[in-house]
Amino acid sequence: MDRIPTSTLKRLPQYLEVLKQFTRAGLREVSATKISVFTDFHQTLVRKDLSYTSINNVPQSGYNIKQLAKAIEELLNWSDTSSSYLVGVGHLGSALLGYQEFSLRGLTIVDSFDNDPAKIGTIVHGVPVHSVLEITSLAAKKHIKIGIITVPPEAAQLVADLMVHSGIKAIWNFTPQKLHVPTDIIVENVDMFASLAVLSRRLAEKDAQ
Amino acid sequence: MDRIPTSTLKRLPQYLEVLKQFTRAGLREVSATKISVFTDFHQTLVRKDLSYTSINNVPQSGYNIKQLAKAIEELLNWSDTSSSYLVGVGHLGSALLGYQEFSLRGLTIVDSFDNDPAKIGTIVHGVPVHSVLEITSLAAKKHIKIGIITVPPEAAQLVADLMVHSGIKAIWNFTPQKLHVPTDIIVENVDMFASLAVLSRRLAEKDAQ
Repeated sequence: MDRIPTSTLKRLPQYLEVLKQFTRAGLREVSATKISVFTDFHQTLVRKDLSYTSINNVPQSGYNIKQLAKAIEELLNWSDTSSSYLVGVGHLGSALLGYQEFSLRGLTIVDSFDNDPAKIGTIVHGVPVHSVLEITSLAAKKHIKIGIITVPPEAAQLVADLMVHSGIKAIWNFTPQKLHVPTDIIVENVDMFASLAVLSRRLAEKDAQ
Repeated sequence: MDRIPTSTLKRLPQYLEVLKQFTRAGLREVSATKISVFTDFHQTLVRKDLSYTSINNVPQSGYNIKQLAKAIEELLNWSDTSSSYLVGVGHLGSALLGYQEFSLRGLTIVDSFDNDPAKIGTIVHGVPVHSVLEITSLAAKKHIKIGIITVPPEAAQLVADLMVHSGIKAIWNFTPQKLHVPTDIIVENVDMFASLAVLSRRLAEKDAQ
């Protein structure tokens, strides 16, 4: 399986999004130029990114939208379902447990863990909440490959260590904490605070103008 | 006010995080080398990033942790409070309304908007939910500068247009939808699906090895 560049992978969901909108608008085919206009990526880049799908860009008509969308989902492995578990059932964790957009993108959360006795044993958006003490035994038994971290930052490294011990292959980290894990473990960060930092500073710079 | 590079701004919250941990561990001073070890950024980069704070790196002892943390918060404008409103009170939107980590980083959400009659008029985590029809009037009246978008992707552009019309200066976009706004509007994206795309593909590539 070819390694696709990270920058391409990050753009693919945006192409999928505009393809859905074109479908809703009743289109069947779309040109790279049109995708370029709707995503603001240069059409040379669009063509290069979409060449990973091996769907043909037919002269005059363009890409078949349905085939292209399916091919992108296959590239991203979103057509398969991957099981995951989540640790930290606070506001953000609970929201992710109920976030149906994930299951449309191949990710299901089958278990969750917390250290709050009031939460342990309950079910949040259909997902059972277990004690953090059970992470290694339960996750290993179910051969779960993806762990999602939504605990406070100071607890994130400990949770990552437990996840690695439970046999996880990939960690999706929603905390600003940099995780130290073995090199064969995939780590992806959603750092909201990095984004908030840019937004806050740019706004302050603008106000000072 | 100097323009700080985006890459530096994105790292500053991680420095803040380790400074908090050093404080909890009872430290008062810390070297760039130690910050480098805990964040995995090269110490030359750490020194360069932190030079924007104008806090001195004293030979032998290093940075004063308390002063450095305060200076970073000031650079990010996190010591001031900025008001914002949020549109789209679904699972993710509700979670953000209850997310106390934001107020520690200078962001308060004072109003929220949705188009679901069952939600309009209720209060979620202390924040009133109004009808989307009131966005322009209410936000303009309160001179709110930041708008947060947590609606489904296909509604994001319309919401962004309303926000711009309401006099917003910056948009924090939690959807994968690319927004088209006037060039003087600051847009920051938290694209979870871009991150999920990388994670899913890397895991599939690894499984295929």
